[in-house]
Amino acid sequence: MSDGDPTAIAEALAAGDRRAVARAISMVEDADPGLPALSAAVYPRTRGAQTVGITGAPGVGKSTLAGALVRLARERGRRVAVLAVDPTSPYTGGALLGDRVRMQEHATDTDVFIRSMATRGHLGGMALAAPEAVRILDAAGYDLIVLETVGVGQAEVDVAAATDTAVVVLAPGLGDAVQMAKAGILEVADVFVVNKADRDGANEVLRELRQMLHLGEARPWSPPVLATTANAGEGVPELWAAIAEHRSWSDTSGQLREKRRARLLREVEALAAERSRVAAAAALAAADGLVDDLEARRIDPYAAADRVVSR
Amino acid sequence: MSDGDPTAIAEALAAGDRRAVARAISMVEDADPGLPALSAAVYPRTRGAQTVGITGAPGVGKSTLAGALVRLARERGRRVAVLAVDPTSPYTGGALLGDRVRMQEHATDTDVFIRSMATRGHLGGMALAAPEAVRILDAAGYDLIVLETVGVGQAEVDVAAATDTAVVVLAPGLGDAVQMAKAGILEVADVFVVNKADRDGANEVLRELRQMLHLGEARPWSPPVLATTANAGEGVPELWAAIAEHRSWSDTSGQLREKRRARLLREVEALAAERSRVAAAAALAAADGLVDDLEARRIDPYAAADRVVSR
Repeated sequence: MSDGDPTAIAEALAAGDRRAVARAISMVEDADPGLPALSAAVYPRTRGAQTVGITGAPGVGKSTLAGALVRLARERGRRVAVLAVDPTSPYTGGALLGDRVRMQEHATDTDVFIRSMATRGHLGGMALAAPEAVRILDAAGYDLIVLETVGVGQAEVDVAAATDTAVVVLAPGLGDAVQMAKAGILEVADVFVVNKADRDGANEVLRELRQMLHLGEARPWSPPVLATTANAGEGVPELWAAIAEHRSWSDTSGQLREKRRARLLREVEALAAERSRVAAAAALAAADGLVDDLEARRIDPYAAADRVVSR
Repeated sequence: MSDGDPTAIAEALAAGDRRAVARAISMVEDADPGLPALSAAVYPRTRGAQTVGITGAPGVGKSTLAGALVRLARERGRRVAVLAVDPTSPYTGGALLGDRVRMQEHATDTDVFIRSMATRGHLGGMALAAPEAVRILDAAGYDLIVLETVGVGQAEVDVAAATDTAVVVLAPGLGDAVQMAKAGILEVADVFVVNKADRDGANEVLRELRQMLHLGEARPWSPPVLATTANAGEGVPELWAAIAEHRSWSDTSGQLREKRRARLLREVEALAAERSRVAAAAALAAADGLVDDLEARRIDPYAAADRVVSR
């Protein structure tokens, strides 16, 4: 891999160079100036990998579930990548979400790629960074990409909503369903999982969840509610099947294509808006005397904004 | 007041017409198309009213404190407005923050204006809407404007940071100091208040807070930490004095002018960015075939954003 040349990095990662994959994702994290060139070289190499989001409150067992899914995927011969994204923190601690444990199990398997990701420099935040990282993994030949998020805030919901199948995980005593409903998570979930189903209170969570879903509007796809005990592997094959079923439904119904097109549009809109914002800030910095005019009330903020935009 | 004509509304509110003030703030909430014209007519009439932010977790007694400050302000002959802003909700329930109670007390006093505010339509959210509402109240002759927010999220912190003096309120058992520190509130606070100081645990909150402040970086202004029992009026004169002292310090140190200039710049930048975003979305909607090109991988998202921006 030629250091720093985006096109060379894109070629290397498409040829299976894992260091090139890691390098490219770091470029996304750091908002490297070479990102547009990388994107231009990576995008034509993408093949439309399947993406699965795993979202839920801290402690519900998302990492264990992701690990269990990786194992099933490998048994079925799929090349799989896990991207653990922290939309709220500008830095990953390096040991996010049980990375090390999972790394050990799959360390020698070149068909598994596991990586934590934060947004050190990406101005648009994870909502813009995650789709780019996914395209890199896609171009690198991983046909199943699991996006694992850390919490249940708006940013996490946005990331989950940007996958083909969003799995929302709850557990007894954690990730209270009402709180999650407020975060708008019921609307984006394609599959619900109540993990740690061997614990007290699991049935209450299942009941509460089914009740809330029953109260909601009828949708073309009714998200199934599954019970798992991921650390014992229980319920994981059923989860795998539910994900496959949702994927198959969304494919044949045309929903997948619509979702992906809408996602691309939103992303371009966000990128364009971000560029416009940067341009506006630069124009403002160059607008000599504007603050003085504002302070002296010779111009009002709206008119000042107009002046900046029209530059 | 001539219905709907922004200039007439601005003239009426500057002449003391309370209905015109209410109407103008509604225009801000609704992002009325006449807003730029209103802003142009209102801004030259502003006089630089003093603004005080009151932020803290729900239940700490912000409304009671605001009410107590209104009473002191009236005793001192100030004209005072309270703007209760809910940055997270698109609608106010109408009874936000004990409005009705306070309204009753000051209902016949034309020198007190109390109003809840949400952002039904304002695209830039409360960060853009609140300063506009403040300018309207300023032009209407209120020389003290209290901005009360509902919680301790990022949006509330932003609103508080945009006042001359940000008062952060805690109470025993509520508004945990560590959580507030995470929200970045320690950095923006000019005065700390531990309200409900007659309750168990008040001393612990005071100690915890002083410890955290001690650990932080030294700043030119050291925020005082006061104890109040607002519903009994205890400590409120001391709070009034602390606000006055901060205002006086920030005025003579030049910090007030710098803060206000920086605030105007940020606001213009946000307004310009918002306009650019709207323009980008419109250009995107008009870009025939772009999604098809994206879907077929003939163009990548970065290049597509470039094409949209350059339109």
